[in-house]
Amino acid sequence: MIENLSQTLRPTVAALEEVLYKPIKLLDHGFIRVIDYMGDDSAIVQAARVSYGKGTKKVSQDRGLINYLMRNSHTTPFEMCEIKLHIKLPIFVARQWVRHRTANINEYSARYSILDKEFYLPAADQISCQSLSNKQGRGEVLDQADSKKVLDILRQDAERCYENYAYMLNIDESTGKIMDESRDSVARELARMNLTLNYYTQWYWKIDLHNLMHFLRLRSHSHAQYEIRVYAEKMLEILKLWVPYTYDAFMNYLSCSFTLSRDAINVVRNRLAGASVSKEESGLSAREWDELQEIFPTL
Amino acid sequence: MIENLSQTLRPTVAALEEVLYKPIKLLDHGFIRVIDYMGDDSAIVQAARVSYGKGTKKVSQDRGLINYLMRNSHTTPFEMCEIKLHIKLPIFVARQWVRHRTANINEYSARYSILDKEFYLPAADQISCQSLSNKQGRGEVLDQADSKKVLDILRQDAERCYENYAYMLNIDESTGKIMDESRDSVARELARMNLTLNYYTQWYWKIDLHNLMHFLRLRSHSHAQYEIRVYAEKMLEILKLWVPYTYDAFMNYLSCSFTLSRDAINVVRNRLAGASVSKEESGLSAREWDELQEIFPTL
Amino acid sequence: MIENLSQTLRPTVAALEEVLYKPIKLLDHGFIRVIDYMGDDSAIVQAARVSYGKGTKKVSQDRGLINYLMRNSHTTPFEMCEIKLHIKLPIFVARQWVRHRTANINEYSARYSILDKEFYLPAADQISCQSLSNKQGRGEVLDQADSKKVLDILRQDAERCYENYAYMLNIDESTGKIMDESRDSVARELARMNLTLNYYTQWYWKIDLHNLMHFLRLRSHSHAQYEIRVYAEKMLEILKLWVPYTYDAFMNYLSCSFTLSRDAINVVRNRLAGASVSKEESGLSAREWDELQEIFPTL
Amino acid sequence: MIENLSQTLRPTVAALEEVLYKPIKLLDHGFIRVIDYMGDDSAIVQAARVSYGKGTKKVSQDRGLINYLMRNSHTTPFEMCEIKLHIKLPIFVARQWVRHRTANINEYSARYSILDKEFYLPAADQISCQSLSNKQGRGEVLDQADSKKVLDILRQDAERCYENYAYMLNIDESTGKIMDESRDSVARELARMNLTLNYYTQWYWKIDLHNLMHFLRLRSHSHAQYEIRVYAEKMLEILKLWVPYTYDAFMNYLSCSFTLSRDAINVVRNRLAGASVSKEESGLSAREWDELQEIFPTL
Repeated sequence: MIENLSQTLRPTVAALEEVLYKPIKLLDHGFIRVIDYMGDDSAIVQAARVSYGKGTKKVSQDRGLINYLMRNSHTTPFEMCEIKLHIKLPIFVARQWVRHRTANINEYSARYSILDKEFYLPAADQISCQSLSNKQGRGEVLDQADSKKVLDILRQDAERCYENYAYMLNIDESTGKIMDESRDSVARELARMNLTLNYYTQWYWKIDLHNLMHFLRLRSHSHAQYEIRVYAEKMLEILKLWVPYTYDAFMNYLSCSFTLSRDAINVVRNRLAGASVSKEESGLSAREWDELQEIFPTL
Repeated sequence: MIENLSQTLRPTVAALEEVLYKPIKLLDHGFIRVIDYMGDDSAIVQAARVSYGKGTKKVSQDRGLINYLMRNSHTTPFEMCEIKLHIKLPIFVARQWVRHRTANINEYSARYSILDKEFYLPAADQISCQSLSNKQGRGEVLDQADSKKVLDILRQDAERCYENYAYMLNIDESTGKIMDESRDSVARELARMNLTLNYYTQWYWKIDLHNLMHFLRLRSHSHAQYEIRVYAEKMLEILKLWVPYTYDAFMNYLSCSFTLSRDAINVVRNRLAGASVSKEESGLSAREWDELQEIFPTL
Repeated sequence: MIENLSQTLRPTVAALEEVLYKPIKLLDHGFIRVIDYMGDDSAIVQAARVSYGKGTKKVSQDRGLINYLMRNSHTTPFEMCEIKLHIKLPIFVARQWVRHRTANINEYSARYSILDKEFYLPAADQISCQSLSNKQGRGEVLDQADSKKVLDILRQDAERCYENYAYMLNIDESTGKIMDESRDSVARELARMNLTLNYYTQWYWKIDLHNLMHFLRLRSHSHAQYEIRVYAEKMLEILKLWVPYTYDAFMNYLSCSFTLSRDAINVVRNRLAGASVSKEESGLSAREWDELQEIFPTL
Repeated sequence: MIENLSQTLRPTVAALEEVLYKPIKLLDHGFIRVIDYMGDDSAIVQAARVSYGKGTKKVSQDRGLINYLMRNSHTTPFEMCEIKLHIKLPIFVARQWVRHRTANINEYSARYSILDKEFYLPAADQISCQSLSNKQGRGEVLDQADSKKVLDILRQDAERCYENYAYMLNIDESTGKIMDESRDSVARELARMNLTLNYYTQWYWKIDLHNLMHFLRLRSHSHAQYEIRVYAEKMLEILKLWVPYTYDAFMNYLSCSFTLSRDAINVVRNRLAGASVSKEESGLSAREWDELQEIFPTL
């Protein structure tokens, strides 16, 4: 195994080394393992200084420079860091995940190998009804009886589908041995189509720090589906261990920021000058108006 | 609708216009529809001539120039053409498809909307056992009884999973209306995880011609899974309608080509010079040796 | 030539067809020519509706949907449109331009062909001293005498370098013929290194609408160098002809927007609630504070 | 500085650590410095085994698996390694280099800072005339007198242009101090356009192993311009230190391979079977025929 201690001249982050290779658990069977990383906060600063040459003499503080880069969307120095994670996640989460195309992926292949009998079941407090306001989200949590019914359905269907998957593969679930020597096993690439979307897959995922933050911003957002948000939140903790200055700048300038449109700037500007602007006059859509009220309740 | 005839100064391909918007069916419920395209064979030539300037004076023939570009991996002129397709495909095929990252995708969202009850069932002559030689492929077709059994499993599991999906959504399958007014419907983003991987999804997929050919080369290959190969083969027909010179060059220089390694060059060179090289002397792996014999049976 | 009128079923934009192939001049020798395009505002809406399925029934207005997509960073439908431009630009501008990697480029090759004697000279009102506040920008315009001196330098050096380029190529500048039959011409790939960075190059550049807007946002910004900003501004006019709804949404939500950091939100929130926050208490950097004052002068 | 020895659990390559941070010189002022790396040969194997799961049990040898991956274009495991280089290179080389878009770049900015007076002059044995057969290449080396003349031109023009650059910046070349306190300095972003394309720039360049090999294959090719080939060749040496198994597989299957078109396969197949095929019958272009003869002289 590669888990030997070696000496290196490369930038090394002690806090991240401590969690290296250790699975960080989440959901019922999922995990994230940090496999490798390249660079640290000082590597970002170093790359930025290549760009600015002697022009950065005055920016003496690393933290200040990282804040400046983040705030002004100077993204290339952040691309100079890279992280590699081993992730186990339900297939329907994996399907959202790959929409982020600027990453490298090596996924477990169910054409080559047999998937384990591991599927995701939501915790009871995550089984919610369809949101009425947000067409893509969840509303209230279901009551206990309904929730139990949903869990029973999900479990029973997942189990039966796996049982039939194993039957087609001609594999005994408990022993992993061939079930019936007289029968052919169906091709794995075919049999797998019988599994439900909550089965777990796993992959190596490698991404640069800039694109990681873009991912985290979108997927830790309250509108993201809970199941992918859980992964994003764990990765935020990893980010904090790895590049603490960048993490702070990310939270301030990206994750917890709010973008005002030209029309919204007008509303706030008028209000700050003592004038008031009605929803009608503002030109904002109902939704934009509401979100502006939410961020500035006394507007 | 956009299907009105307009006048345009842009390069237009009559043969492709004829199939525009018309679903080309494949598998049991899948289709490919050409939605839009940019450029044609002459647009590739035109772009190449920007690069070469007066340097191309002598290459007077479009076909010759396209062959030259393809053979010498001058890929940028091919990137100057683009095609947009509407595709309906099983989820397990979609999962392979997105490994090609240099394309634009808009997929039907099962967080917003309800998936139709449409799932893929292989034709009987496609239900095969696991290949013994190729760890990721199919071997012999199953006999009729076994094959019927597999189809029954796939159909029954897909149907039961959909039934329960509809139950959780609280939707009556046949009418599309709410099933039980007294009960909440489970969030769509949750309920969907109960569907099997052979359910159909659909998307708009836009890609440039260079990356399309890369996709087609890999996915029309005999090692690609049958279900995605069927799509690649239909797209080859579309390619031929759209850019016939490029299609010919693609078939000759990419799709039906064979790459000899340094060691394989030595084997062929020796053989052509009258010497013979044994498998052992060749340095080739068993697999490479076999593939070389297959392409040159008299080697 | 391809400039014949054809009939097509594809989405066609009359206002853009009118400028197709016509060079739009800028700087002293530069131009932008629209060569081809794919899609229009309705193609964006159409792609979005594939994603939302029946979930978009209520969003009946195209303009409203485009605003919604822009505001919520639902970028994939904008990727479904594509534009191809023929651009002539100074090499130092081209060097900034290619930092945007998600585009396709076919550049004139000075290895194959000979560059024309065309170089950029700034207009007198663009010859400025180094900015004192902005390390990468321009300050005051130079007085007439200094400015004339600069122009003389730039012109003389560019001319002499070209003269020597032509000498090395053994080409008579005025006739384009060989200068001296008894002498070899130096390889073009070598001779070109004698040209200055203000020489013009040209290329075909193809990009999708989402990435075009990202380019335009950064390059029409007041911090961008004047010479690339001029190109961005002309492309904004092209954008308006091509996709007018998208153009409006872009101006409101992206180009003229302002992003408040978490700390800046606090400042504005307090001020709207009647409290005041000093620069010191705010946690903002001097620069961030100044920019906030600029957008909200009565803060 | 970051050049301290640390302990790490990450894969570490002793042979590469030895050259870390040390400039490897090339051309007259250029260099390559390895700044950081992620992964090694075993990391590729490890990533591949995630994909294949238990399906790879039999492929016990790392070297064999790497050969298999390379030969079958299974590129994703190679994407799991990354390297970061600090490179100093002439601007005309940098312009070719950035055509490879799947890399991260932080370039020295001549808007912020002043470029050093360092320009490339070819060695005498590299000053060649235009190739007659290859429109983009070099032919015979020039005789001594002509070559001296070329060098004089290149040196004098580069020097005079820099002199005027410094004059516009109002900087004394030898001391780096302001030349004339009574005069404004021209904005750096303007003055730089007076420099010739053989001036050196520098950047941090980060790329994954798969894309690095693609770069190396194209840029170490005999058709690549000498000045970029020199960089590619040094990077091949770095590749060999870093991932020796991958290097061997790259040389055998990619760099020294030869691709036969469908028509060329026919020629070789016939010849191996004892039949002969004439150039006319072959369907090959003159160029393809010649290249085939070159690889198989006894064809």
